[in-house]
Amino acid sequence: MQAHRAIPAPSRDDGRKGLVVLGSTGSIGTQTLDVVRSFPERFRVIGLAAGRNNALFQRQLAEFRPRYFWCQHTAGLEPGEACCAPMEEMVADPDVGLVMVGTVGIAGLSPTLAAVRAGKAIAPANKEVLVMAGEAVTREAARHGAAILPVDSEHNAIWQCLQTDGASHLAVSQRVARLILTASGGPFRTASRRDMEEATPEQALRHPNWTMGPKITIDSATLMNKGMEIIEAHWLFGVPQEKIDVVMHPQSIIHSMVEFVDGSIVAQLSQPDMRMPIQYALSYPERWSNPRLPRLDLAHLKALTFEPPDLERFPCLSLAREALSKGATYAAVLCAADEAAVALFLDRQIRLMDVPRIVGQALDEHRPTPQPDLEAILDADRWARERVQSLARGLPARV
Amino acid sequence: MQAHRAIPAPSRDDGRKGLVVLGSTGSIGTQTLDVVRSFPERFRVIGLAAGRNNALFQRQLAEFRPRYFWCQHTAGLEPGEACCAPMEEMVADPDVGLVMVGTVGIAGLSPTLAAVRAGKAIAPANKEVLVMAGEAVTREAARHGAAILPVDSEHNAIWQCLQTDGASHLAVSQRVARLILTASGGPFRTASRRDMEEATPEQALRHPNWTMGPKITIDSATLMNKGMEIIEAHWLFGVPQEKIDVVMHPQSIIHSMVEFVDGSIVAQLSQPDMRMPIQYALSYPERWSNPRLPRLDLAHLKALTFEPPDLERFPCLSLAREALSKGATYAAVLCAADEAAVALFLDRQIRLMDVPRIVGQALDEHRPTPQPDLEAILDADRWARERVQSLARGLPARV
Repeated sequence: MQAHRAIPAPSRDDGRKGLVVLGSTGSIGTQTLDVVRSFPERFRVIGLAAGRNNALFQRQLAEFRPRYFWCQHTAGLEPGEACCAPMEEMVADPDVGLVMVGTVGIAGLSPTLAAVRAGKAIAPANKEVLVMAGEAVTREAARHGAAILPVDSEHNAIWQCLQTDGASHLAVSQRVARLILTASGGPFRTASRRDMEEATPEQALRHPNWTMGPKITIDSATLMNKGMEIIEAHWLFGVPQEKIDVVMHPQSIIHSMVEFVDGSIVAQLSQPDMRMPIQYALSYPERWSNPRLPRLDLAHLKALTFEPPDLERFPCLSLAREALSKGATYAAVLCAADEAAVALFLDRQIRLMDVPRIVGQALDEHRPTPQPDLEAILDADRWARERVQSLARGLPARV
Repeated sequence: MQAHRAIPAPSRDDGRKGLVVLGSTGSIGTQTLDVVRSFPERFRVIGLAAGRNNALFQRQLAEFRPRYFWCQHTAGLEPGEACCAPMEEMVADPDVGLVMVGTVGIAGLSPTLAAVRAGKAIAPANKEVLVMAGEAVTREAARHGAAILPVDSEHNAIWQCLQTDGASHLAVSQRVARLILTASGGPFRTASRRDMEEATPEQALRHPNWTMGPKITIDSATLMNKGMEIIEAHWLFGVPQEKIDVVMHPQSIIHSMVEFVDGSIVAQLSQPDMRMPIQYALSYPERWSNPRLPRLDLAHLKALTFEPPDLERFPCLSLAREALSKGATYAAVLCAADEAAVALFLDRQIRLMDVPRIVGQALDEHRPTPQPDLEAILDADRWARERVQSLARGLPARV
C-alpha cells in the first residue's frame, strides 16, 4: 500500500504516556490494549499497526482514536481522523514515549530500530527482533539512550528480579552468577522421542499452561522458544551464555530467576497471563493495582517442581546456543529457518523433529556476514527461508 | 562488672567498614565473624560483646583484635589492647559503620537504641528488639537517619524482594499488596494436636531445616517465631498487619515473598544458611561472591510446596496479631512471657501447648502503658516474666 505522509497533530501534553502498538490485533497487541483500557488516564494511543485482521483493527481505531495507523490492506477501512503512516514514522512522533513491539516475525525489526534511534523506549514482545538483531538493537539503544523494557514473561521476570538489590548502577555482571530461564516443557516434556517424532500439529499446539499464537506454541513444544530466550537474555542483560541456564518448571508459575554472586536467588511468580508483564513494562518504574489481573493463591498451589532439560529430545536448545556463540548472522538464520520450518510442520509437510534437523542443517551450511547491518540480516533471513524449502523437499514424505 | 571508660584509639580510616558484633559468641555472632573472615579487606571489627562463653570470646579477641569488648565476666580474660566498654558506648564510636545485634533476649534493646541515636546502621538478628520496641526503634532510626538492615532470613528476603522495581523512593505501601512470610512449620507441622500436647523438649528441638539456638527452635515449633515476624515486618516495612500473611513452606527454600499491587510476586530463595542474609546485610548495597556460601541446585530440588497455617494448632500466630493490634506494651508482654514460658517448657515444668495458654493469659491480664518509653517496656517485660511464673505454678503438673 501507499503510505500517506502523516501530518502530526498539535501535541497536547496532558501527562499521559504516548503509546504505539505494533501488531495491535495480535495476542500481545490486544492484551496491551486491554491494559491500556484499564488506565485511560495514563495513556493515549498515538499509533496502531496491524496485519490482516481488519475487522478487529477497525474496532480498535474507533475505540482508541490513534493519530496514526498502518495496516496491510486499507480497503474498506474507515480510519476516522487517523493518518496512514509507515511504522518507522509513527514511532518517531515526538509525543510517543513507548513502542510496544507485538508484531510477528521480522516485520518489527525495522520499526524497532527506528524507534530506538529516535530515543524511544521499546517494549519488545517479539523474539525475532532481539534474536536476529540483538547486537544492533542494544548498541543503537545505548547510543540513543533508548530504554528496552522486555515483555516476554521470562525476561520481564529477570528484569523484575535484577533490580532487587537496589544497586542498579552496578554492572549486572558484577552481581549476577546466573540467569535461570524457566521452561514449562510444553506438551512433550514427558513424551518419548518416538512420540515426538510422530507428533501431529494438533498435539504440538496443545500447550498445557499458556494460550499463544501457533508459531510460538510450536516453539514451546520444541524448546526453540527457550533457546531464543537465551539469545535475547544475552543481549538484554549483557550476560554471557555460560551464565544463562534453563530449568524445566512445568507449572509456569515462576517465570524466571536470577542467582546473584552471593548465592541468593530471586524469582518472579504470577499466574501465566501476559497482561502482567505487559502492564509492568507500561507502568515501570511504578506498579499499578489492576483488579483485572489474576492473583496467585500460593497457599493452595500445587507443588512447584523443577528438572533439568533433556538436550537429546530438545536439540533446539543446543542449536540456539551454537548460533549465539558463532555470532554474525547465525542467529538470524536460526530464527528464519525455524519460522519457515514450523510453517512447514503446521502445514503437515515435515515432522516435528525435522524442525531441529533442518535448522541445524541451515546453520551448518550458512556463510556468515560478520557484524551485520540490517541489510545483511535480511539477506541471511531470506537465504535461510529458501534453504529450508529445499531441505524440506529432500526429506522423506510425512506419513 | 565495672565498665572501664574506653579511650578511643586514633581513627585510622583504611576504607574498611567498622563493625560491632553484639552477641559475638552466639549463633548469629559466630556466623557474622565467619563472613567477616571471608572479607578481611572489607571490615575491621571495632567492638565485640558476648555473654558467658569466655573460651570462645578469648579466641575471638585474639583473632579480630577489636578496640572494645564487653562480656559478663572478665575474670581470666586476656583482652590484649582492647578496652572494656559498655555496649551503648562502643556502638557510638565514630569509626563504627554497622552494628550487628545478635544478642539473645532483651539485652540488645538498650545498645540498639544507642546505635540508632548515634546514626549507625543496625542489623537486627534479634527478634526481641523489634517486637518489644519496634515503634521506638524505627522512630528513632528515622529521626537519626540510621538504616535498619534486617538479618532474620524472612525479613532479609522481603528486603531483597522489595527493591525489585527500582523505585525504592516510592512508598512501599503504594506498591505492596501483601508481604508473605514463609514458615517451615517446624517439627509439628503435620502433628496432631494431641501429639503437640504431649511433645517433649527433645521432640520440639528437632527442627527439620534450620540449626538454631534452643529458644528460637521452640518458637519455630509453636510458630511464635512467625507471629513475632509479623510484628517485626510491620515495623520494618511500614505495612499494616492485614497485609502480612503467613504461608507454610516445609522446604525452607523460599525465605519470604512480596506480592505487589499488580499481582506480581517476587520471592527470595537460598539454602537455609544464616550466613547468606548476614552477608547481604554486611555487603549491601553490593553483592559479593563467597564460595563458602552453599548454592541451591534448583534442577535437582524436590518440589516446593505451600499450605495455609492451622491456627487451631498454632494459636501463637493469633496471639502475636492480637498483641500488634493492641499496641502499647502488649508486644513486650508477648515477647517476655514467651521467653519465660519457653524456658519453663525446656525445663520440663510446663507442656508445649501451655506456652500459648500462658502467654494468652498474660496478654489478657496486662495493663498496658500507651506509647511506652524504654523504662515502660522493661517494666512490662518484668511484669510478664513474673506473671508467667505464677501462672505456671497454677497449671497441672507435667506428666
